[in-house]
Amino acid sequence: MADSLMSSIVVKVPINIAVIKYWGKKCEKEMLPMNDSISLTINDLYATTKILFDGHLDTDMIFINENKYEIKEGSRYEKVFKETRRLIKNYYSDSKKLTGLLSKKFYVQSTTNFPVAAGLASSAAGFGAIAYGLGKLLNFSDQDITYLARIGSGSATRSVLPGLVIWKGNDSGECKTLFPENYWPELRAIIVIVAETEKEISSSVGMQRTLETSEFYKYRITNCVQKNVEQVIEGYRERNFKKFAEVIMKDSNQFHAVCLDTKPPLKYMNDISWKLVNLAENFNKDKIKVAYTFDAGPNCCYYIEKDNVNSILILLEKEGFSLQNHKVIISTVGGGPEIIRK
Amino acid sequence: MADSLMSSIVVKVPINIAVIKYWGKKCEKEMLPMNDSISLTINDLYATTKILFDGHLDTDMIFINENKYEIKEGSRYEKVFKETRRLIKNYYSDSKKLTGLLSKKFYVQSTTNFPVAAGLASSAAGFGAIAYGLGKLLNFSDQDITYLARIGSGSATRSVLPGLVIWKGNDSGECKTLFPENYWPELRAIIVIVAETEKEISSSVGMQRTLETSEFYKYRITNCVQKNVEQVIEGYRERNFKKFAEVIMKDSNQFHAVCLDTKPPLKYMNDISWKLVNLAENFNKDKIKVAYTFDAGPNCCYYIEKDNVNSILILLEKEGFSLQNHKVIISTVGGGPEIIRK
Repeated sequence: MADSLMSSIVVKVPINIAVIKYWGKKCEKEMLPMNDSISLTINDLYATTKILFDGHLDTDMIFINENKYEIKEGSRYEKVFKETRRLIKNYYSDSKKLTGLLSKKFYVQSTTNFPVAAGLASSAAGFGAIAYGLGKLLNFSDQDITYLARIGSGSATRSVLPGLVIWKGNDSGECKTLFPENYWPELRAIIVIVAETEKEISSSVGMQRTLETSEFYKYRITNCVQKNVEQVIEGYRERNFKKFAEVIMKDSNQFHAVCLDTKPPLKYMNDISWKLVNLAENFNKDKIKVAYTFDAGPNCCYYIEKDNVNSILILLEKEGFSLQNHKVIISTVGGGPEIIRK
Repeated sequence: MADSLMSSIVVKVPINIAVIKYWGKKCEKEMLPMNDSISLTINDLYATTKILFDGHLDTDMIFINENKYEIKEGSRYEKVFKETRRLIKNYYSDSKKLTGLLSKKFYVQSTTNFPVAAGLASSAAGFGAIAYGLGKLLNFSDQDITYLARIGSGSATRSVLPGLVIWKGNDSGECKTLFPENYWPELRAIIVIVAETEKEISSSVGMQRTLETSEFYKYRITNCVQKNVEQVIEGYRERNFKKFAEVIMKDSNQFHAVCLDTKPPLKYMNDISWKLVNLAENFNKDKIKVAYTFDAGPNCCYYIEKDNVNSILILLEKEGFSLQNHKVIISTVGGGPEIIRK
């Protein structure tokens, strides 16, 4: 079987922005989240990743946007390669083939079409692409691909599937498509770039701190998330924008409230983020037409139907955010990963 | 008895900044709060109020910082005067005296030693002073004075008593001193002026919105506030600054988290407020020496012991906040109201 394997692949995997936020792990080793999260991929922001699986290399190698990345012991990259080799043993039982495969090294070359440190979920696209590329190269199941992705970066697991994707907070860490890619074709994302600086406190450290210190966090996990999940699914199923939007905004605010309730408090939104919240609230005055959501950073993601895109772009331009100055990116959503070249 | 009454008084009543925050009323008419709150008065920011109780006036009159205030029907001022007259009937039974008293009008002239619209709890000082002045003029009990104050403005009820003051969230709305004025003489407040603009959404409207829409709010009321109250009292009793400070910061963050969890979200702290949070967190790195707290506005109140005042002033000056540019006010705390002249 190994003979029929490709030895090189190029894949394209988008970032994703959650509509129900993930925050906190119940198991660091298996990267199991404390709660369900739901996302849509942002098709126009992606990593393009070439993977070679080669017998002539001495060591695994990674290049990100032309820079060589040192694969340190215990790093997320090392963990992903190690798990890939463990999975190879499950998939390939012929001992000669297996020895051959395990002697090969991985060469990963990844480029993103946006700045890596821009607080734009680059790790979701990056690790998603590595997992998807490796998985397709080695004929792994979707389940194992989502597993490999999350070993690299929790939210990356949602980037390797199309459509509206749920990552379950159960003990399997299951990730699956709830609605296919073209279920709601009018939906768009508008990413508004507020700041391009790396955050001071990584999500990983931040969420651990929340888990240990926030009282609201426990309440959110037990009493709020599941309701929000159900409402998002219902809104999406009915393509009911109002229902969908209301719960997205609520969940985003609740997530940032939990960050604030952390000790010391985590503050990811800034005054410009808040300007964009107010812009959306005003835009929604008569009818709910846009939903804002903020990940663990100041940048804003609006979900909106395509008929309303122009009206909000005009308002954004007045505030200094425009397509021209690259502060605004408009994208279709939910496309999921693609194989560019085998 | 009425003959022995003074007909004029001048009082001085400070603002107060809560260490456990009040947010939300369970009864608008009686101004009963949903939860216990605890505060210290900030002695150096106060209203000085002269009250005349005069038979020659045609109507009640109010002047605030030289400007005549129109007493509209249903206004908080009208409500306070109405309640005062109702109380007069309870206190004075001699019908002739009573008729005499009820024919008199109130003349209130109030000045604050800080800008009224600066988001510095001016209504707490202002209504506190009116209630305290009227109460002392008419020989009302402390309980009735705290009642009159809260009818004007909820948090004003805490300004008319000295020391560490609790306003209970029970059905009597009782307000009392927990520890006398000089129990912890080393304690100081540093007020850092972040913005002098009036807030867009009044606390009254904001808290109602929170009460109706926030899930975290219900949880806070039921599960968090009481623990915080106990811890503050314990810390104060022991003069244990660390214990006192930790819960103050937690309660402030929790209150702002609840505001964020409101629909639409209420955002009172801005990026400069957050700079002051971080300044305090850094200052506390090795040992907790300062506690920050924010009311429903961007201005910061630090509680700190006097030995540490100079060190933090140096840090504040580096950030552009100094005594010289009137961005910083240092005050003793808990002094409570005073009669200046009878």
